Amino acid sequence: MPGKRSTKVATDRRNRDAEVVEAAIKVFYEKGYAASSIQDVADIVGVLKGSLYHYISSKEDLLFRILQQSHEHARAIMLEVSELEVGPAERLYTYLHRMYLWYLSHVERVSIYFNQQQHLTGTNRTIMRKNGREFSRFIRDLLSEARQVGELRNDLDVKLASFFIVGALNSIPTWYRPSGEYAPEYIADEFARMSLAALGVVGLPESTEAARA
Amino acid sequence: MPGKRSTKVATDRRNRDAEVVEAAIKVFYEKGYAASSIQDVADIVGVLKGSLYHYISSKEDLLFRILQQSHEHARAIMLEVSELEVGPAERLYTYLHRMYLWYLSHVERVSIYFNQQQHLTGTNRTIMRKNGREFSRFIRDLLSEARQVGELRNDLDVKLASFFIVGALNSIPTWYRPSGEYAPEYIADEFARMSLAALGVVGLPESTEAARA
Repeated sequence: MPGKRSTKVATDRRNRDAEVVEAAIKVFYEKGYAASSIQDVADIVGVLKGSLYHYISSKEDLLFRILQQSHEHARAIMLEVSELEVGPAERLYTYLHRMYLWYLSHVERVSIYFNQQQHLTGTNRTIMRKNGREFSRFIRDLLSEARQVGELRNDLDVKLASFFIVGALNSIPTWYRPSGEYAPEYIADEFARMSLAALGVVGLPESTEAARA
Repeated sequence: MPGKRSTKVATDRRNRDAEVVEAAIKVFYEKGYAASSIQDVADIVGVLKGSLYHYISSKEDLLFRILQQSHEHARAIMLEVSELEVGPAERLYTYLHRMYLWYLSHVERVSIYFNQQQHLTGTNRTIMRKNGREFSRFIRDLLSEARQVGELRNDLDVKLASFFIVGALNSIPTWYRPSGEYAPEYIADEFARMSLAALGVVGLPESTEAARA
């Protein structure tokens, strides 16, 4: 049954790809990209360095894959939230709440996203910059829409306000430790609420509880 | 007049010290601490590398001086604000407003503070960690006091809330460009207000305008 066999090969390949990416996250997070080598990644996976080149073409390729996967997660959350049939402030709450939960469960990935991205070159760099703009535009559009329907302080500068709430979001890897005193769900809810309060949203609709379930 | 002469020598020495620190800020900001050399700093100052050792003992000594000076500025703001005879929420506004203005006019220093501090070793590292705790304690104490007198949302977790407002503050070097569209005074006022709103402070006392003059 060649079909079955090739499915197994494809699955093994995917698992090994994921394993290589997870090993690279560990190495880049602990040593920083510049000080890391493909050899370090091979050591964690437990294969010879040469074997890794079946899965990746270079160290930068690994970094790009990590960042690209992180952006894909963020994009999936944007899409889900866009489809919710609730007002913009509530969509913003839900978006932030889901992003916080994702950040809190992927601190190493997120830290690499912010601290190692400058090592990308050429097309990789161009693509990740475009991704960053997509993320910024999503937040600003949501804020503009919320302001337009009167859910935000009406003199709010949307671009500046987005820097404020994104600044708080992106600070997660600088202080959060999974072994710490706060449960991720509590942080996500508190930070999403503080973000909305900062923008002049007073309270949240009752239905928010349902929207974030 | 030997007295006058030694004053001049002391002044020259201080000016040269400041010049060396400014050059190091430029180098560490642009190349990162790890990739920078004392030679890079000497090139900017326009002296031979050997001459720099009259002013500093090592590359780490330079980094430590930059960080220590930054902390001294932050400490001066804490002291000024502690002495204001206004309520805690208003002191928090004034503190944040002054810190934002300082960050906005020293983006390179602040960026080094957050991104290069991990290169310190031994006593230098211990001292800077202690400084960091002093800063965190100041904010938390101010929030606790404000909550106690009913100026903040009373179910607010003070420690978590401090991470939120400090996260927004510390994000300044990641997006602010002095050539950009926003005046520092506008950003400082808007961000300090959004911080207080996030904590549940509604409006600010009239006298705030005077307090931050």
